[in-house]
Order: sequence, then structure tokens, then C-alpha cells
Amino acid sequence: MDVFEAIKARRSIRRYKKGAEIPEEHLRRILEAARLAPSAGNRQPWKFVVVRDPEVKRRLAEACRGQMFIADASVVVVALGDPSVSRWYLQDPMIAVEHMVLEATELGYGTCWIGAFDEDAVKGVLDIPAGLKVICALPIGVPDESPPARSRKPFDEIFYLDKYGNKYP
Amino acid sequence: MDVFEAIKARRSIRRYKKGAEIPEEHLRRILEAARLAPSAGNRQPWKFVVVRDPEVKRRLAEACRGQMFIADASVVVVALGDPSVSRWYLQDPMIAVEHMVLEATELGYGTCWIGAFDEDAVKGVLDIPAGLKVICALPIGVPDESPPARSRKPFDEIFYLDKYGNKYP
Repeated sequence: MDVFEAIKARRSIRRYKKGAEIPEEHLRRILEAARLAPSAGNRQPWKFVVVRDPEVKRRLAEACRGQMFIADASVVVVALGDPSVSRWYLQDPMIAVEHMVLEATELGYGTCWIGAFDEDAVKGVLDIPAGLKVICALPIGVPDESPPARSRKPFDEIFYLDKYGNKYP
Repeated sequence: MDVFEAIKARRSIRRYKKGAEIPEEHLRRILEAARLAPSAGNRQPWKFVVVRDPEVKRRLAEACRGQMFIADASVVVVALGDPSVSRWYLQDPMIAVEHMVLEATELGYGTCWIGAFDEDAVKGVLDIPAGLKVICALPIGVPDESPPARSRKPFDEIFYLDKYGNKYP
């Protein structure tokens, strides 16, 4: 699947086939996509906890404001930023996570960016050190829904030419 | 080019062929890749100034701490976050910019995330309203160098299984 196809095909998936597994080869490739992401000064200010254990997934879903569909995904990757490594610790992990999202899309899996969580609760479930920042959780699994594309702001509303406010022709 | 190939092929390009142009069709596709990016609650807290004018590019490069190679790129896209739209205004534009990076890679262009800039100076050059945050600049152009891949932290150093610190098998 080419890049543009993957970008168009990607959806936020909130229903996963329970019990479906992701072959290790696929999961490794998804994680490798994150590992290869660019970061400011190549500092890579990130860590990832890859959650496969059902009970840990359940507790993690509870910590994500009770969004229990998360626990149905085959894997949930929790991305962490390290402020001691880079001042881009909030932003750079976003790049790595979107690499996972697009690679998972290419391989036929669904994902959903999860930004609503109780950070202390997530840290408690996963034994995350106090100095790290929880950026997001990313369930990855076999989709059990096919949601339509969501609306986007029109082109003219977000792109300008040469100066802010100058209409893009 | 498939997603994983694009992720592996991507480099930060700091030398561009001067005077090379990006066909409008390609540029539109790169911008569309940004427009389709996911965002928290689909709020799309972003704006982009697409700079093609040579003199504006030059002044922008100066505002990016004098990294003048930026002005040699065919286009420089400046990404802005809007705090009035979403509390994810710093993070969500990162996703959209990486979509542009990967789509540009697919189409054969080079890019480079630029995070070092004088924000007030960039705002002055592009007439950006005070309430918006400059996230980054992204030169896009025809590469005039082929840098090798930069090193990445080893797999075991960034991925854990089920709990932080637990070795991924």
C-alpha cells in the first residue's frame, strides 16, 4: 500500500475483533516504523511499553477513562516522552506513533490515538518512572468496524500562500 | 512506494537543488496528506503557510537561526498550532507534518524538520497572528545530497513488554 493510500485509508478504530492476534513479524515491523522516526537532533526522546497481557490491557483501558474497547485490541502500545533527553519530548513521540499508525494501516490493522487517560493511573498500571511523560496509548488490532471518513476542514481554511491569511490559489 | 519503504528511505535533507520546482499536482498531494491527518477529537488545530516566494523564503531562513539552506528548497511549509481550538495544539500538527514528510518522500522529494527558529521573527516574516504557535518549518525540495541513515537506539533500549523495564522478548 503506498503512502497516500495508507493516509486515505486510515481510520480511528474503536471496535476490534476480540482474541485476534498480530503475528510477531507484523508487530516487529510496526515497532520498527516507530524506531526509525525522525526526532529533533536525532535524540529519540521516547520509550514504548507494548502491552499484550490481557489483564494489563484491561487495567490500562480502565486508566484510559474506562474506554474498554482498548482492551479488545491485540496490542496496546503506550508511548512515553523523556524530558531529560530532549525539550521535544512531547512532540517527537507523536511522529513515532503516527509511523506505527500508518504501518499498521498498511498491514491491515486498525489503530486509534488515545489521548484521554489518567496519567498517574497509567503510570501505576505499567510501572512507569515518575520522570517520564505519558504521551498516548495506541491500540492495534483487527478492525471490527468500517467507519466512514470523518470530515476535514476545507483546503482554503488551513493553507495560505507566502503570508498568513493570503489565499492559496 | 509502500509505507515501510518510505519510512526507511526518509532522510533529513539539508541541501536542495536550487531553482528546482515542485509541480502543483505534487504539492497539492503533499498538502492533502497533511489535511487528512488525525487529530484529537478531529479538531484539526492547525494552519499552514506554504512559502514559495524566494524573498519570503530567504527571510524565513534567516528567522530559522540563519539556516540558509532552507531558502534553497522549492517550498517551505510553516506549521502553526491553534491553542483556541484544542489543547493538543502542540502535538497534533506534528502528525500532519509527518504525513507531508512521508508523502514527499514517496514522490521523491527531500524534507527536513526545522525546530530551531526565532518564533517572533517567523511570525513577523509571515504575518502570523499572536495567538498561534509556530510548530516547525518544513522545507520540501529536490535533494542535492544522499546522506546515510543516522543511528537509532537499539530495539531493546526503547521497547518493553507489558511493564516498563520488562525486556521485550
